[in-house]
Amino acid sequence: MEDNQRTEIAELGEFGLIDHLTQNNEITQAGTLLSVGDDAAVIDQFGKQTVISTDMLVEGVHFDLMYTPLKHLGYKAVAVNLSDICAMFATPTHILLSIGISNRFSVEALDEFYEGVYAACAKYNVDLVGGDTTTSQKGFIISITAVGEVSPNEFVTRSGAKNNDLICVSGELGGAYMGLQLLEREKRVYLENPGVQPTLENRAYIVGRILKPEPRADIVSWLQEQGIKPTSMIDISDGLSSELLHICKQSNVGCILHEEKIPIHDETREMAFEFQIDPTMCALSGGEDYELLFTMPPQDYEKIVLNEQISVIGYVTEAAEGAHMLSKGGNKHKLIAQGWNAFGQ
Amino acid sequence: MEDNQRTEIAELGEFGLIDHLTQNNEITQAGTLLSVGDDAAVIDQFGKQTVISTDMLVEGVHFDLMYTPLKHLGYKAVAVNLSDICAMFATPTHILLSIGISNRFSVEALDEFYEGVYAACAKYNVDLVGGDTTTSQKGFIISITAVGEVSPNEFVTRSGAKNNDLICVSGELGGAYMGLQLLEREKRVYLENPGVQPTLENRAYIVGRILKPEPRADIVSWLQEQGIKPTSMIDISDGLSSELLHICKQSNVGCILHEEKIPIHDETREMAFEFQIDPTMCALSGGEDYELLFTMPPQDYEKIVLNEQISVIGYVTEAAEGAHMLSKGGNKHKLIAQGWNAFGQ
Repeated sequence: MEDNQRTEIAELGEFGLIDHLTQNNEITQAGTLLSVGDDAAVIDQFGKQTVISTDMLVEGVHFDLMYTPLKHLGYKAVAVNLSDICAMFATPTHILLSIGISNRFSVEALDEFYEGVYAACAKYNVDLVGGDTTTSQKGFIISITAVGEVSPNEFVTRSGAKNNDLICVSGELGGAYMGLQLLEREKRVYLENPGVQPTLENRAYIVGRILKPEPRADIVSWLQEQGIKPTSMIDISDGLSSELLHICKQSNVGCILHEEKIPIHDETREMAFEFQIDPTMCALSGGEDYELLFTMPPQDYEKIVLNEQISVIGYVTEAAEGAHMLSKGGNKHKLIAQGWNAFGQ
Repeated sequence: MEDNQRTEIAELGEFGLIDHLTQNNEITQAGTLLSVGDDAAVIDQFGKQTVISTDMLVEGVHFDLMYTPLKHLGYKAVAVNLSDICAMFATPTHILLSIGISNRFSVEALDEFYEGVYAACAKYNVDLVGGDTTTSQKGFIISITAVGEVSPNEFVTRSGAKNNDLICVSGELGGAYMGLQLLEREKRVYLENPGVQPTLENRAYIVGRILKPEPRADIVSWLQEQGIKPTSMIDISDGLSSELLHICKQSNVGCILHEEKIPIHDETREMAFEFQIDPTMCALSGGEDYELLFTMPPQDYEKIVLNEQISVIGYVTEAAEGAHMLSKGGNKHKLIAQGWNAFGQ
């Protein structure tokens, strides 16, 4: 594809566009009986339960095309939906993708977006089986529905956490938020002085965290292989505090979070220092890490202790004790959806 | 609800809004193991195959809120998605609904929209099991995914039509298009002279066809009860011509359509006369009727002849014969996606 090529979407027409965008769509799931090109897709999941979730992403609200390459956007749009399926302790199998596009997008631009979509599908062994392509009045709108499967009644909700359970988290937190801060800063610099090149070198980790998040299907598989079934699970899209409070509310429990146990990457810490933000605050309130937060019985501790991708960050208490964080300094702070209350109990 | 009440969406917050909108959500499907409120829904369809489809509707592209009451919009958004499931010869069971809304909408406006959504769910015995609520930069964006079930390999695609099959259609065609023309005319009159009341009396049928279409789940059930399995099926969203050409292309067949057999309601004919449009053109090219177009073996004719809701409108031919309409005057016209070619063979 040459950089300067531009094919107007109107040249292909609606059906031509759909054919064009789905011509390289590969089907890998044995259960995909019928894919794109009919009124609906048909999926056979005989003997399994179907898990299904949907998300809408709107340009200017959820993403900024000024610093989001379209290929990354396609990848991320799929990834965040698969993350919801993983958070049910299920295996993603299929997606449906609808897009609304204004006429400022060319066919080549859409091809880049779909390249990212197909890359994520291939990586996670997921089939694209349907969708809709329409015009938007403004900007780019993406709506994805993800489907997954789970053995009967093996799915994990937000509501099963029990008193004394361990609170665990996968990977590291706060990186996506610092990546976003960096991209926003470089955007401002660029807008003020278009001659200045963005300073993103040596920041691949945090930039990658915001532009190309990965659903933790690997963590789900690993836990299943170890025979560990979490008592509750959620993916971290809004920040650790907010997600932990969802589990506490829906499980009717409280929690104690240990600040020093929260896993934070060195590059996130360095960047937070540069921006004069508390790294703990990035983990608690910065969203879009798409790591898994889960609870499990304390007797399973031995099984996970050697997995460096899983950190135990606290424990579940009775609901009456509320939701708190023990700070590095030994103080107890009440957790609130946007971080913590430095003055509260 | 008082007419002048207006609650800003920001007053409820994202999670408050979701709780508010789903508080009256009733679950009726035994297979719904987990509904809204977690990362994904869980559906058990043990022994059945899952049919799944998605559609995006954008304000200003697919609907005009000036003459579309929000309750009707909610109903229609669900109905058109269920129609896709019916067109697979399947039974709709679940939907997921995502909306993008600008801040010009109040909570009360959304309540009206959801009233329509829930009314359609209740009428068709479908559970709302998930969704997403987000901000849009402009207008109202609706994305619905519908899920249905079908006995193993009993689904019907667009690709099974055979030479000599009968071409059948449910209900009557062209009404939605005339309803849209009427609403557009009254909108223009109103914009030019806001004092003039719209003239919609005695036009309940065509206005109903555009504002409140019904998926033909009744036709699917009836055919199943009669032991008739169509060889191909599609729902009519873009007009009879376009849909019939989809079946011909995907089944690799041709067709002969008999103009005088196309079912058109008297009110559609009257309105077409008033607008000086050919009623046949309304049926062929006017979209949004959401009737079912299907083919079946000629030996099943006796089984359907007494059903007044089903019309036989032509028959399937070899692909080499192309797709044509025999006009009332006995002329043979080539069918094209936007109606027919009056000069072609």
